[in-house]
Amino acid sequence: MSEFQVIGKSLPRVDAVEKVTGAARYAADMSLPGMLWGKFLRSPYDHARIVGIDVSKAEALPGVRAVLTHKSIGSAASLATEDSVHGTKVDQSLFAADRIIYQGQKIAAVAADSPHLAEDALDLIEVEYEALPAVHDVLEAIEPDAPIIQENTNVIETPEGTPLYNVCDQGHHAFGDVEQGFAESDLIVEGTYRIARAHQTYLEPHAVVAQVDATGKVTVWTGTQSIFAIRSGLASSLGIPLSKINVIGTTIGGGFGAKFGLMIHPYAVLLSQATGRPVKIVYSREEEFLDACPAPGLVIHLKTGVKKDGTLLARQATAYWNIGVGPGGTWGTGRIAGVYKIPNVKWDAYAVYTHEPTPGAYRAPNAPQVTFASEAQLDEVAHKLGIDPVELRLKNMAEEGDSLLGGGPLTRVAFKETLRKVAELVDWKNRKSKAVSSNGHKIGWGIAVGEWTNGAGPAGAILSIHEDGIARILYGKVDLTGTDTACAQIAAEVLEMPFEDIQIIHGDTDSSPYATGSGGSVVLFSVGNAVKRAAEHAREQILTLAAQELKTEVDKLAIHDKRVWVQGSEDEYVSFAELGQASLRTTGGPLIGTGRFANEPSHPVISAQAVQVAVDTETGKLKILGLAQALDVGRAINPVECEGQMQGGMIQGLGWGWTEQMAYDKERGNLNPNLLDYQLLSTNDLPGIDCALVEKESEHGPFGVKGIGEPPITPTVAALVNAVADATGVHVTEVPLTPERVYGAISRAEGKGPR
Amino acid sequence: MSEFQVIGKSLPRVDAVEKVTGAARYAADMSLPGMLWGKFLRSPYDHARIVGIDVSKAEALPGVRAVLTHKSIGSAASLATEDSVHGTKVDQSLFAADRIIYQGQKIAAVAADSPHLAEDALDLIEVEYEALPAVHDVLEAIEPDAPIIQENTNVIETPEGTPLYNVCDQGHHAFGDVEQGFAESDLIVEGTYRIARAHQTYLEPHAVVAQVDATGKVTVWTGTQSIFAIRSGLASSLGIPLSKINVIGTTIGGGFGAKFGLMIHPYAVLLSQATGRPVKIVYSREEEFLDACPAPGLVIHLKTGVKKDGTLLARQATAYWNIGVGPGGTWGTGRIAGVYKIPNVKWDAYAVYTHEPTPGAYRAPNAPQVTFASEAQLDEVAHKLGIDPVELRLKNMAEEGDSLLGGGPLTRVAFKETLRKVAELVDWKNRKSKAVSSNGHKIGWGIAVGEWTNGAGPAGAILSIHEDGIARILYGKVDLTGTDTACAQIAAEVLEMPFEDIQIIHGDTDSSPYATGSGGSVVLFSVGNAVKRAAEHAREQILTLAAQELKTEVDKLAIHDKRVWVQGSEDEYVSFAELGQASLRTTGGPLIGTGRFANEPSHPVISAQAVQVAVDTETGKLKILGLAQALDVGRAINPVECEGQMQGGMIQGLGWGWTEQMAYDKERGNLNPNLLDYQLLSTNDLPGIDCALVEKESEHGPFGVKGIGEPPITPTVAALVNAVADATGVHVTEVPLTPERVYGAISRAEGKGPR
Repeated sequence: MSEFQVIGKSLPRVDAVEKVTGAARYAADMSLPGMLWGKFLRSPYDHARIVGIDVSKAEALPGVRAVLTHKSIGSAASLATEDSVHGTKVDQSLFAADRIIYQGQKIAAVAADSPHLAEDALDLIEVEYEALPAVHDVLEAIEPDAPIIQENTNVIETPEGTPLYNVCDQGHHAFGDVEQGFAESDLIVEGTYRIARAHQTYLEPHAVVAQVDATGKVTVWTGTQSIFAIRSGLASSLGIPLSKINVIGTTIGGGFGAKFGLMIHPYAVLLSQATGRPVKIVYSREEEFLDACPAPGLVIHLKTGVKKDGTLLARQATAYWNIGVGPGGTWGTGRIAGVYKIPNVKWDAYAVYTHEPTPGAYRAPNAPQVTFASEAQLDEVAHKLGIDPVELRLKNMAEEGDSLLGGGPLTRVAFKETLRKVAELVDWKNRKSKAVSSNGHKIGWGIAVGEWTNGAGPAGAILSIHEDGIARILYGKVDLTGTDTACAQIAAEVLEMPFEDIQIIHGDTDSSPYATGSGGSVVLFSVGNAVKRAAEHAREQILTLAAQELKTEVDKLAIHDKRVWVQGSEDEYVSFAELGQASLRTTGGPLIGTGRFANEPSHPVISAQAVQVAVDTETGKLKILGLAQALDVGRAINPVECEGQMQGGMIQGLGWGWTEQMAYDKERGNLNPNLLDYQLLSTNDLPGIDCALVEKESEHGPFGVKGIGEPPITPTVAALVNAVADATGVHVTEVPLTPERVYGAISRAEGKGPR
Repeated sequence: MSEFQVIGKSLPRVDAVEKVTGAARYAADMSLPGMLWGKFLRSPYDHARIVGIDVSKAEALPGVRAVLTHKSIGSAASLATEDSVHGTKVDQSLFAADRIIYQGQKIAAVAADSPHLAEDALDLIEVEYEALPAVHDVLEAIEPDAPIIQENTNVIETPEGTPLYNVCDQGHHAFGDVEQGFAESDLIVEGTYRIARAHQTYLEPHAVVAQVDATGKVTVWTGTQSIFAIRSGLASSLGIPLSKINVIGTTIGGGFGAKFGLMIHPYAVLLSQATGRPVKIVYSREEEFLDACPAPGLVIHLKTGVKKDGTLLARQATAYWNIGVGPGGTWGTGRIAGVYKIPNVKWDAYAVYTHEPTPGAYRAPNAPQVTFASEAQLDEVAHKLGIDPVELRLKNMAEEGDSLLGGGPLTRVAFKETLRKVAELVDWKNRKSKAVSSNGHKIGWGIAVGEWTNGAGPAGAILSIHEDGIARILYGKVDLTGTDTACAQIAAEVLEMPFEDIQIIHGDTDSSPYATGSGGSVVLFSVGNAVKRAAEHAREQILTLAAQELKTEVDKLAIHDKRVWVQGSEDEYVSFAELGQASLRTTGGPLIGTGRFANEPSHPVISAQAVQVAVDTETGKLKILGLAQALDVGRAINPVECEGQMQGGMIQGLGWGWTEQMAYDKERGNLNPNLLDYQLLSTNDLPGIDCALVEKESEHGPFGVKGIGEPPITPTVAALVNAVADATGVHVTEVPLTPERVYGAISRAEGKGPR
């Protein structure tokens, strides 16, 4: 029997009914009296000079209330925001002035009485362009003959002295001595891995309604991962005092990291300021692809040195991140070391400008790209050494007391346990490699692991007991992944009351205590802690008041079934409802618990995944036959929600590895800005996913919670590629694994002779 | 120099800009997509039998979405609510079934696409009535031949054995032995005093928008004195769980006690439930007069026994409160004892039904009516004994250590100081009684005092420090009278920060900690305490964090100018903004102070008032020449706001005494349901009011605050009547002092011979 009453139970989501009935209100559902619709005029070119812009005809159209361009707003306002998880600063002009540097770049914004009028107005804006050559490939962009994307970019030099162009940022790191490591190696495997940009493809496109009142107070309704990031973003972007902005988070239809900072928000505010009326902007799916913040693509050259017995000696990488028009960084490259004790590691990484929009965060930002290369090459090593891929990993994997890249000793990690768990799930030892199905398809199993360590973020929570005995939690957290349900479970556990009687209230930035954004796997670790403390604080007040009402001592009391009982008595009790009412009469006052949290360290976890694939070697088409995953969740507050995260992340990883890519062409720009040509996986494409939860409790997470939103996406691309290798013997180094690419790789491999 | 930095300053109201610019949103300003308008069909009769109701034509009108009557909603729902200040229970059917008992009683409610369509639908509802005789005078209503207003009302007997009809409630109280007191008296004065119903005449009529979503969650926007009272009222009225109701308080345009409980709210909810769309209801001014909750009228027979030297020996009253169709009580009758040490007091009071709407609270409920009789008769006593009215009062007035009606010894009272203060203001001793102006008008001064003791109510407040160093207060209190400004001053004082940097956030019932309703003079005493405690709690956190950041001890720190300084150092400091930001990084978490308060006793205060009047004895017309008031405010947080309360209350008292009355006629019903015929005073009618604040600090109010919203209305009717008596020698016993009534009283007095 569990030591817990509510925790560990797969209870239904607190927002299930409103989601299912359609009562949940998204930003696009918002409508205000006198509201206008905002639309953008965008560049069809990815690189061009603007010769002239004439908005006069658009302005003259009846029903058009404002037309904004670079000229009308000046350069004071900019899209400055901060990704609260990763600290990346993005600073861009709101509208193109005289040069276009990516397709879809905004040239003007219109507010009109209806969306159709706004579109008509866009048609009336005359822009004269002079097209210029564009570059999309990072390896072309660093060459001397590449067009310059951002003016005033310095030419840099690699450690070897090669000049690189269009580099925004670089990172270099050396641990140990890789040269010596490679020299001592029995086997060196190297390769160049390419992974395309992927879009987060949340169901709900970006949407906002902004209203500026007569006092200048700005109210913004939007589906965002962080109402406080939008608030601070708008303040710095538009020079509005923080305290004159209120952000109301509407129900969000997915974010995956893309809905942290500013996107369309400052435009809606500017249009509302210009017109004195509320303004709504909703992105189309095409706009999402042309002008949002997808995950960056990566080209990485990776080299691994290993002894015959499988001991990893050295790893070295040179990485080129496609950061579009930037800015952007190189973080994540260090993940080439993974969770392995590698004595010598070195990387040189470059953030390279291209004529593409600036990327942003996508679930475990930058981890899937690097982990793809890292874990795929590890399988190639295992294959070449004839060592089982699981055994190779276990041999090198760190455990408690070990350190990674010279860091402190690891505590509360369960890497090996997690990997063994997934191997167990799929009966790894007894699998058949290079099996062939009845229809001649080659079948194989791939395995891979991906690491993530949740961060922590500031959070406050208020928990109050009402006159009906219900507990209400007020916070400024957005529910992206079901964390409201888990927070309700945490509070119910502390207060020993029914989960159903906990209500979650999402405040706005005006009313709520600060809460960290819903991303970076920090939410339950951080806000969950604030909720736990608020519940504990309320519990103290409940017991104190109950002792007064029951004329006894606090330590003689017990809580059960929304009642406080005198221990050992069958009829001496006072109900939470009675206490809620009594609190309004006594000197103490309403029962209000406060919880505050900001930062405590957590522990790294891995998601270990196995993929079984069937490869049609005649067409290159894949079929996924089996999926399994084990994840160290620290403590499963709600197991089915944990599994939901595991499944969702793994499916996204499969999409990235198999079908999804943002495709660009020098002449034609983005080739697939829609969900017909940008191929998402559907449930028809996939079998179920077997999930196993490992619970190695963290020290500081509430009841041992570790953050789990991100790990599940990290190893999937690699696991898929490894499955294809297991089936065919061919290690494909570029994803997604389109039929053409798989067929081509197999053909080339066969052309080189049998393997 | 004041011991305070912010308290005691007449700072501008925090809501000044939004009020002046029109940015403040009242409930009637609310508009939601798809919103319907609700209107009521009302009875033109004040007593009738309903023979039949036919709504079919109304229902058939296109654009009409719902028609509700007694039949369609059944009897489950009712207008059950509780006046949180006085505990009066009101329970009424929402619609008339087969009998009408007051004019304006609701028969049906319609929701339609526009207000005009709704009105058209009302015209299409066919109701057949059979008119019945009505009664409006309480002394007629208690007679055996009066029509019965509420069926099943028991006939009661007075202590003398007289049967009384139509009595809802009675109250009898005896202190000492009045018979003996009268026997020992040298002079006995008695008379019957009549005061009419008065309407609170807030500028903003009742308004509500209700929305019921697909999950059944009810959201209500309304201008109310207590969002929590509306929530609990709706819950019990409609049988909806408390936690499925959210009440959002919009800016309120006056309440004066009338906007505490349910009025139009359940109808809007029922119409929204019936139509699935938001519904707005806004009362017209006529509806306010016909079907709201004005102050009850009173007929009171009062008798005072006194010794020659002015020592009060006995007081006895029989009171008949006009509680309309009820229910209602007799509270307030005990105010015949005032703040005087009278050894023998007795009263018998009856709450009498009439064919008028149920009254409700109006600023210091029931006090002005009784105080009128009590303080007017005291002047007649003074006149007959030849003792100065101020001296007579001072002689009998209680002071610290005395007890009233056998209660505990008084502490922290300043009755005499307050009375002396107003006498000083008008140079009472040197005034000329029975002066005559150049145009022959008779001039006189009246003085009177009225007592009120503020209660206390439950309140929570959350105060958080944001990243820009601003402090935000979240609470569920409604700002009716400027208490937001005073609360901001209290927080600024505690945090030693600029008043301008405190922001007030009004939460809704979902997000806010509980707050007592804004009435009963409890607000600043109660919520002010919660705010003070929240600020103190935040201050602790600020100092703790600052000590960490400055690497010193808390007791070495001082706060000044939104910075925490190391004492004695000129450059070692950390700003509130830096602390707000730092709190998001440390282990402590966001700076969130919580304050809780529910109940502590306060102390009685008096408002002492003087009125100078000129009486045109040929027409009975009055002109007010001078007005003065002294009030014990405990501690003036914002003196000009205190004066605002004093002036507002006194003007309302003057209206009640001089021009305002809800007039009814047996045949024609309400004679003046509009602001042309119901005469309010305007600034043209009045001189300025000299105000003096007495500050006898209370023990438990924040910084010594006592509640001051209500006292200023209590003695004004009496002071006006006493001024007319001082000018003319005629003690008028019925108000308002219309010209006819004053002229008549003077004529009758003259007919009896010179006085």
